[in-house]
Amino acid sequence: MSTNRLEAFSDGVIAIAITLLVLEIGVPETEEGGLAQALADQWPSYAAYAVSFTVIGIMWMNHHAIFDRVAVVDRPLLVLNLHLLLWIALLPWPTALLAEHVDSGGGDAGIAAAVYSATMFMCAIAFTVLWRWVVRDDGPLDPAVDRATAQASTRRFGLGLLVYLAAIGLSFVSAPATLALHAAAAVYYLWDQLAVAQPAGR
Amino acid sequence: MSTNRLEAFSDGVIAIAITLLVLEIGVPETEEGGLAQALADQWPSYAAYAVSFTVIGIMWMNHHAIFDRVAVVDRPLLVLNLHLLLWIALLPWPTALLAEHVDSGGGDAGIAAAVYSATMFMCAIAFTVLWRWVVRDDGPLDPAVDRATAQASTRRFGLGLLVYLAAIGLSFVSAPATLALHAAAAVYYLWDQLAVAQPAGR
Amino acid sequence: MSTNRLEAFSDGVIAIAITLLVLEIGVPETEEGGLAQALADQWPSYAAYAVSFTVIGIMWMNHHAIFDRVAVVDRPLLVLNLHLLLWIALLPWPTALLAEHVDSGGGDAGIAAAVYSATMFMCAIAFTVLWRWVVRDDGPLDPAVDRATAQASTRRFGLGLLVYLAAIGLSFVSAPATLALHAAAAVYYLWDQLAVAQPAGR
Amino acid sequence: MSTNRLEAFSDGVIAIAITLLVLEIGVPETEEGGLAQALADQWPSYAAYAVSFTVIGIMWMNHHAIFDRVAVVDRPLLVLNLHLLLWIALLPWPTALLAEHVDSGGGDAGIAAAVYSATMFMCAIAFTVLWRWVVRDDGPLDPAVDRATAQASTRRFGLGLLVYLAAIGLSFVSAPATLALHAAAAVYYLWDQLAVAQPAGR
Repeated sequence: MSTNRLEAFSDGVIAIAITLLVLEIGVPETEEGGLAQALADQWPSYAAYAVSFTVIGIMWMNHHAIFDRVAVVDRPLLVLNLHLLLWIALLPWPTALLAEHVDSGGGDAGIAAAVYSATMFMCAIAFTVLWRWVVRDDGPLDPAVDRATAQASTRRFGLGLLVYLAAIGLSFVSAPATLALHAAAAVYYLWDQLAVAQPAGR
Repeated sequence: MSTNRLEAFSDGVIAIAITLLVLEIGVPETEEGGLAQALADQWPSYAAYAVSFTVIGIMWMNHHAIFDRVAVVDRPLLVLNLHLLLWIALLPWPTALLAEHVDSGGGDAGIAAAVYSATMFMCAIAFTVLWRWVVRDDGPLDPAVDRATAQASTRRFGLGLLVYLAAIGLSFVSAPATLALHAAAAVYYLWDQLAVAQPAGR
Repeated sequence: MSTNRLEAFSDGVIAIAITLLVLEIGVPETEEGGLAQALADQWPSYAAYAVSFTVIGIMWMNHHAIFDRVAVVDRPLLVLNLHLLLWIALLPWPTALLAEHVDSGGGDAGIAAAVYSATMFMCAIAFTVLWRWVVRDDGPLDPAVDRATAQASTRRFGLGLLVYLAAIGLSFVSAPATLALHAAAAVYYLWDQLAVAQPAGR
Repeated sequence: MSTNRLEAFSDGVIAIAITLLVLEIGVPETEEGGLAQALADQWPSYAAYAVSFTVIGIMWMNHHAIFDRVAVVDRPLLVLNLHLLLWIALLPWPTALLAEHVDSGGGDAGIAAAVYSATMFMCAIAFTVLWRWVVRDDGPLDPAVDRATAQASTRRFGLGLLVYLAAIGLSFVSAPATLALHAAAAVYYLWDQLAVAQPAGR
């Protein structure tokens, strides 16, 4: 299977997941004249939509950055990619969960934020495992990419894992702050070039 | 990243958003024999579906008109495009909101129409910012396109912004009239050629 | 715009519409031990899913059969295609409506079946208008196709319109029979070659 | 029609079906402080999501393995592929049904598991019929593939049918065990190379 086909299918799944996010924003049913307040009370839905949309958008960019550096697709890579998509396609659910419970009491907000952060953590794990498989000594890395530089870049993936672990911990302190942390991490990644070795001559 | 890949992903998101619109049209639950009346009472859902479908369809055409004139995709362009998609993918929500509340009382209809118009306004802003980035003096505009003509075309984008601002104002006067204004603007754009300089030799 | 890009976007919308059909099949909530009966009572949902899935699948085939014979895509063709997609993307709604009301009393079943048939009729109208635009004397028909044969084929489109008109009439007699008529028409079209002139040399 | 176009449409349907699975995982509404328990009680939803996601992912791989070996797409093949997609696109429904009823009493769990297994069985039937059509003596098999080897591989498809028949039987004994059987079959297939003759020289 060519990387083109794998990327087209992955693009499809990611595009659908990112577009399904909107379904968690409901139309409030209110008494007459209460719509403005009801819409304002829905702020967690808008925030969760914006953060998750940005995060999935970045994952789409990273997915391409990785597969641009893959020479051939073998079956283990297919499986590792499917594993990654399983977590990305799940994201509309923790997004809805966090939007619904970010201002719940009794510890529920913390649990919702922790589930959200843990799903992001699993996405990061899936990215890391996939990238390590690609850059390993006899992996399917594009020969035009310097393997040593590519292997060194896996350390940056580790940094991302630490941020998501911190987010899980922060969840039990403050759910809104956790969402803000995810937003900050997303903005950081948006402007930071993926530190993956460029194929020579591109 | 090639413009092809960015366009394929954007096409996917836009195709899904346009198709999710249908989910806001519900199946009415009525007493026996009351279906005809219940379906007639749902007219705002049909109108909102038709208008939003047409508007998103036009956005799809404009998106291609823009990226046909882009030579290379850099990271800021990826981010500006993701920002545009965030607003387009949101459209099923204000569509459902307007359909539900267009005949509500107590000012709710106006608020729903204003949210709908404001989302359209944000789409127009996102288009304008993206196009200005492309046509700026050292931007990634296709060399086959005359830059001065392309830059002049940004004035027409400004006109669109004014129409959407007017729609926000009109919302508080009449929600149905606001929907009609969006429909009229869509029909106008459908038949009006985008005033963007053609690449030479096409 | 190339026909490839228009077809890719149309394929996306059609693929999403055909896959959203499944959302109308609900998970019945029943008392313990009542699931088998509740699932059996849902037969209209299964039938409507199967018929609409087949009809949309055939529309996808016909869409390609048409655009294989188009040489260039101009703006009117874009608009006519968007108009066609508007009706195809709507189909999940009348499918859900018919599934819900096919065994309702008080005339409701007939109204639901008529709305379903009328949406199909509008799809057929949209196909006919689009095809007539393509084969008209100075239309964008592929020069490899014999124009006279292609124009003659529009008569067969007219036959399809008659079948759907008959379905609207039959709706008020029997909703299940109407669904069966749509199924029969679909099976007929599945095995019948589209009587459109083949491009020479294919 | 080229196999590319058929595969692109099929990829779209499969990508959407696999991504719609997430919609069956609900956001529990609980009393304050009860979210952790409510999320734990939803384990069947997570298990059903993971199993169905993996199964559909494997079907996607197999779909490509088959069409890589198809030389030309004729109308019967289009119909057989549409028939396959009808069952794959249906999978979100039995997934939601099983997740909802896996721990129901009164025999309902068994019925839900049997419907789930039967849908998988129908997918396997559809794959088998399609593959038999391709490899038959005057079928559209790619000439680079050894026909005798390809025909021999149909026996392995028969084995899959037996597993799904066993799953239907097991359903009435234990619904969770049935889900585990589907998971085990998926893991087996994930790591087992499809025993379809490779085109020469690839």
